[in-house]
Amino acid sequence: MKLRVDLLPYGSYSDTVLVVDVLRATTTAAVFLEQGASEVRFTASLEAALEQRGEGIVLAGERGGLPIPDFDLGNSPLEASGLNFTGRTVVMNTTNGTTAAHAAAASGKHVILASLRNAHAAARRARSLAVEEIAIVCAGREGRSGLDDVYTAGVLCEYLLAMGEWTLDDGARIALTVRRQVGDPLEPLAGSAAGESLERVGLGQDVQFCARISESTVVPVLAEHSELGLIFRS
Amino acid sequence: MKLRVDLLPYGSYSDTVLVVDVLRATTTAAVFLEQGASEVRFTASLEAALEQRGEGIVLAGERGGLPIPDFDLGNSPLEASGLNFTGRTVVMNTTNGTTAAHAAAASGKHVILASLRNAHAAARRARSLAVEEIAIVCAGREGRSGLDDVYTAGVLCEYLLAMGEWTLDDGARIALTVRRQVGDPLEPLAGSAAGESLERVGLGQDVQFCARISESTVVPVLAEHSELGLIFRS
Repeated sequence: MKLRVDLLPYGSYSDTVLVVDVLRATTTAAVFLEQGASEVRFTASLEAALEQRGEGIVLAGERGGLPIPDFDLGNSPLEASGLNFTGRTVVMNTTNGTTAAHAAAASGKHVILASLRNAHAAARRARSLAVEEIAIVCAGREGRSGLDDVYTAGVLCEYLLAMGEWTLDDGARIALTVRRQVGDPLEPLAGSAAGESLERVGLGQDVQFCARISESTVVPVLAEHSELGLIFRS
Repeated sequence: MKLRVDLLPYGSYSDTVLVVDVLRATTTAAVFLEQGASEVRFTASLEAALEQRGEGIVLAGERGGLPIPDFDLGNSPLEASGLNFTGRTVVMNTTNGTTAAHAAAASGKHVILASLRNAHAAARRARSLAVEEIAIVCAGREGRSGLDDVYTAGVLCEYLLAMGEWTLDDGARIALTVRRQVGDPLEPLAGSAAGESLERVGLGQDVQFCARISESTVVPVLAEHSELGLIFRS
């Protein structure tokens, strides 16, 4: 079985894809499901999210880390973790994470949203679905690789290595090296460009929340790719 | 001063760019100059190289690691190191390295070819030219990041860190982490996809040659960007 890490979403995918935007879209999407949302939709654009406004719908997202005017919520997992979304549908659009998921869904057979918080559970789910390859796709930030996502990819690789035999590509070796050199996950997250930027706009507590490893077993899996967007359910 | 590493050539550049394709184009280009070539031209295509065939011209390049029919030489730095190119112009085209250099030259102010063999000298040259930013661009392999190039970028970062104060981007942090975790340069080079592929076609000795750090002070610097291609001189 092949294990591959794309340090940016630049490839085409044939099997199972774990999409990582640990700060914060893939962390937050899982929290919405944890907190009772029936599904999370990733739209291709901000406009496509706004069009879905209606009863039972929560609009969530960010631009430059900050909430979007006319949206109900930002992209804060910490905030979401304190709310109840039972029976609601959350429609999300973010700068990097939703775009990376769309790139993965264009060719991938199974698409899973992974973060540090659900790392072990996401790795197990991917392992159970994959036939020949697991690709971990780092969303990055505005077209540049992020230390936060590459570290998270390394954590996922480490779990997967414990579950079987793999042929690693160069990206997986790089991610594992980053993971193994850094002990405390808060260090690469807070030190990344994304982490520093959140700190600057007063969202440093979100970074701490996203740095907790395998606290949750809720894994968003792509259930449907409709005109409404990518529909994830746990 | 900013220090940035692009794990693939995906950006635009405003100042000084170090292009890295350690296995093997940027290593080999420097060897041609060491061995007396008056200049090395990187063409945009294989055809553009063939059109320059003529007296005093040496055509060198590869596809899939192997020499190109009708070319005089492959892309072997070891082979080039045993030949004399005094007064000759070497016209090169390769799968990844020449493409990465063209991407860098499209916007970069100063473009330098770096490898492990000239790492210290290339870092010093970049430091002396840069005004606000040094970007290290990893050529990668067929659109994917290479462990060999990212490791080499880490070595270059380490030299640069010793020469002044820098603001590091995430790519630079990742490259430095890879560099610091691995002692022997032969390990990431031989273990990379590019290194394994060269080993398979019987070119393992080239990998060993490329793994020698700072053995040379010859640094190819972009002197001219003409219709003949990118013209590098030392």
